[in-house]
Amino acid sequence: MRTHVKLLKRVRLRSPVLIEGLPGLALVGRLSVSYLVEALGAEKFAELYSPHFPYYVIVDGDGHIRLPKGEFYYWRSDGRAPDLILMVGDSQAQTSEGQYEVATCVLEFAKKHGAKTVITVGGYRTEGGGHRVMCASTSKELLNMAVSAGATVSPLGSPIVGIAGLLLGLASFTGMDAICLLGETRGHIPDPGAAKNVLRVLTSMLGLEVDLSGLDKSIEEAREIEEALSGIELEEVLEWRPERGRGPEYIF
Amino acid sequence: MRTHVKLLKRVRLRSPVLIEGLPGLALVGRLSVSYLVEALGAEKFAELYSPHFPYYVIVDGDGHIRLPKGEFYYWRSDGRAPDLILMVGDSQAQTSEGQYEVATCVLEFAKKHGAKTVITVGGYRTEGGGHRVMCASTSKELLNMAVSAGATVSPLGSPIVGIAGLLLGLASFTGMDAICLLGETRGHIPDPGAAKNVLRVLTSMLGLEVDLSGLDKSIEEAREIEEALSGIELEEVLEWRPERGRGPEYIF
Amino acid sequence: MRTHVKLLKRVRLRSPVLIEGLPGLALVGRLSVSYLVEALGAEKFAELYSPHFPYYVIVDGDGHIRLPKGEFYYWRSDGRAPDLILMVGDSQAQTSEGQYEVATCVLEFAKKHGAKTVITVGGYRTEGGGHRVMCASTSKELLNMAVSAGATVSPLGSPIVGIAGLLLGLASFTGMDAICLLGETRGHIPDPGAAKNVLRVLTSMLGLEVDLSGLDKSIEEAREIEEALSGIELEEVLEWRPERGRGPEYIF
Amino acid sequence: MRTHVKLLKRVRLRSPVLIEGLPGLALVGRLSVSYLVEALGAEKFAELYSPHFPYYVIVDGDGHIRLPKGEFYYWRSDGRAPDLILMVGDSQAQTSEGQYEVATCVLEFAKKHGAKTVITVGGYRTEGGGHRVMCASTSKELLNMAVSAGATVSPLGSPIVGIAGLLLGLASFTGMDAICLLGETRGHIPDPGAAKNVLRVLTSMLGLEVDLSGLDKSIEEAREIEEALSGIELEEVLEWRPERGRGPEYIF
Repeated sequence: MRTHVKLLKRVRLRSPVLIEGLPGLALVGRLSVSYLVEALGAEKFAELYSPHFPYYVIVDGDGHIRLPKGEFYYWRSDGRAPDLILMVGDSQAQTSEGQYEVATCVLEFAKKHGAKTVITVGGYRTEGGGHRVMCASTSKELLNMAVSAGATVSPLGSPIVGIAGLLLGLASFTGMDAICLLGETRGHIPDPGAAKNVLRVLTSMLGLEVDLSGLDKSIEEAREIEEALSGIELEEVLEWRPERGRGPEYIF
Repeated sequence: MRTHVKLLKRVRLRSPVLIEGLPGLALVGRLSVSYLVEALGAEKFAELYSPHFPYYVIVDGDGHIRLPKGEFYYWRSDGRAPDLILMVGDSQAQTSEGQYEVATCVLEFAKKHGAKTVITVGGYRTEGGGHRVMCASTSKELLNMAVSAGATVSPLGSPIVGIAGLLLGLASFTGMDAICLLGETRGHIPDPGAAKNVLRVLTSMLGLEVDLSGLDKSIEEAREIEEALSGIELEEVLEWRPERGRGPEYIF
Repeated sequence: MRTHVKLLKRVRLRSPVLIEGLPGLALVGRLSVSYLVEALGAEKFAELYSPHFPYYVIVDGDGHIRLPKGEFYYWRSDGRAPDLILMVGDSQAQTSEGQYEVATCVLEFAKKHGAKTVITVGGYRTEGGGHRVMCASTSKELLNMAVSAGATVSPLGSPIVGIAGLLLGLASFTGMDAICLLGETRGHIPDPGAAKNVLRVLTSMLGLEVDLSGLDKSIEEAREIEEALSGIELEEVLEWRPERGRGPEYIF
Repeated sequence: MRTHVKLLKRVRLRSPVLIEGLPGLALVGRLSVSYLVEALGAEKFAELYSPHFPYYVIVDGDGHIRLPKGEFYYWRSDGRAPDLILMVGDSQAQTSEGQYEVATCVLEFAKKHGAKTVITVGGYRTEGGGHRVMCASTSKELLNMAVSAGATVSPLGSPIVGIAGLLLGLASFTGMDAICLLGETRGHIPDPGAAKNVLRVLTSMLGLEVDLSGLDKSIEEAREIEEALSGIELEEVLEWRPERGRGPEYIF
């Protein structure tokens, strides 16, 4: 099996924006884009499989088994916002070559559906957390839009690891513009607060009307866990790392 | 050398069920399927080789040397149970890509022989051990059959690592149904008791008549070792892991 | 995406010398060749991309994002020195195969532009530092030139790791001669002093007239940092290593 | 660059025996076969290069640089012993796939020159050392020859790691017979004593007349080092391991 996209439904979209949120630091990307999928009632139309994902299968509810995969959802705007392709999934690729291969496959798929803009979402680790949304882009124009929507330009020298970064780096080879929005987080546990901060910027940028209060309950729960953990010295940060194919990075 | 199957004998089978038991957690899979091979008097008809297996050779008795490999045995039923293809072997592949490649090769081989159902066997780690056999499947029907035979549906979120999982995940691409049966085990040493529990479910599911009492002596021995070890804190669990090609995972 | 060179400008050069300075021990190579690029006013004419580079993107100033890459600059001599192709970049490849692939790609690019000589630049770790420039070569003649310019022949048995070494080893397959110049360094921090020592030899060998005093300020700063660190036991040496795709090796 | 053999001289041999001695445990293989090359005055006729070797270059005497490589020497018998192809080299491949690729390339080269027998040489670790030479083979006949020459049949279950093992495992696919001879060694330092023990068996098996006393001086030196080290607890065994491309495994 090669890295490939399995199309579930033929869909025609008008210059959709691709928004990616695979698992990463504090799950900020996945939490954000999964929330959007649900809030918008977006529909799944394709899946991505790759031998570069870790070599396990996932047990869904009811004992049903499936490979780790990426999922593409589409949402048709009424015209006030752009159409969207929303990508979420279970994991990232395990090697440099795998990461390049998966990111290339995602961009080709988006391009084939007419996408000209890519937005990737993730976490941005700072010691004490914070509420900023950092942004970096291949395009000055996109950057300005994000800043107008409340984001802060990412400082020099802080690399963006994994697919959230590679999609941007590779987008320029395909003629697409791309930006990432990274929510500040302490990074120890899944951080729905950072996700909400990112979504505020994202929805404002795109003119999307999405009620974000649905995240408040899990934000409260996360706050309680953080408090309970505050006495404990945490060695590990919840971020994505290649683990030579073992175990789930995130069981959420 | 590419991953390939070397056919030793041409065999025609009627919709055989593929049962896989490569080394994994507490060797439950290998113990189970090896026992079946012997108890049924199944005959070897093919071998699988792969450059993704670890780069050593195995010394059999009498100073004879051979590559690590997978082995396929066939068993023809008298009609009350399905025909079987039984797969055992020395090792699993060392990387994500290797795991996908080997699993794909196994499924293609089984499909070419008319298989429509795949059963994988392994261990399921629980702190205190236990006697349950957990199951997860690509098919509701297979899952019901396993539950009727005494298995418990695997809970949400517990991934199945290695070929026992991947064969299931990839089976759906080939039009085959697949299920895994995982025997509860503490996982510290090879666990023939877990193997017996799995075989009870497996033989009942397939209508196989196999005397399982042949495992009792090694179950007793394992119990004694567990007792002797009970004072010692064990750090390591006996499970399969990629080790960058060094050493045998299991010398049994 | 495969490892490839993206040509930005068609350039005709007369038997140029390729000088490589990717990140490595104490950044000696990168500091040296970057200084040359600036001092000579060399112009960029090509970029090298590879899926073997680490899977992150770099945030330049102003929130602009780009893939890690190699950069080729050219400089046309007035005839007293050879024309130059200067290569700098962000990272080295992450695996043996990647290193061979990138090095081969660099040599093919240089050969296509008529290069017959390759010079690689890096650091040479010695406990107490020192001011020597060690050299090793595929060609007795180049070695003699370097020694005449003040370099010391590298002793037996000390391997040269990474692209600075591989370019030499692979050059012989392409009919090019190659030499490396390695500045002695303690290796704990970026070492502009070692870079200056290397550049003295290099410019003398090639008959380049370059004012090296521009490095003096950062040499002084590095000396101060070394002094401040002198009481602390440093476990880590600043050298290039594959890190399975994570993080920037050098943010400088 | 792909794994390939570079032929330096066309040579016609009569059913030569391939003897391999790349670096491995206590350097027994390399010491043995290098000694044979010198003692017999064998002539180099080919070199093997591979991107799976570690990514550094080696500095020979006089500042000359070269890639890690395998070397093939030939020796023409006067008829009392078989012709020989002797293989030595700098390193082994770094991954499972690389090991399979290099071993396959070696066997194809040997087959093309008419070889029907392969002998690999290495070390066999035992706690207290010892003077035995363990053997394991794909052929009962070769095994008997080794035993007659003083070797001991290797016990069950002790895997043979690296090219010394893989050449045997893969030989059966090419119609060649193969045997390995492993000299007992404590494994902490290069062990010329174990090499001498292996060479005694090897020369006896093949009817080679080689004076082995040339090893006595380095055996005495090794004994002195072992004594000096006898008070120190040694954690590391000198064996070959993949090190992700860094550093020389053995500078000898």
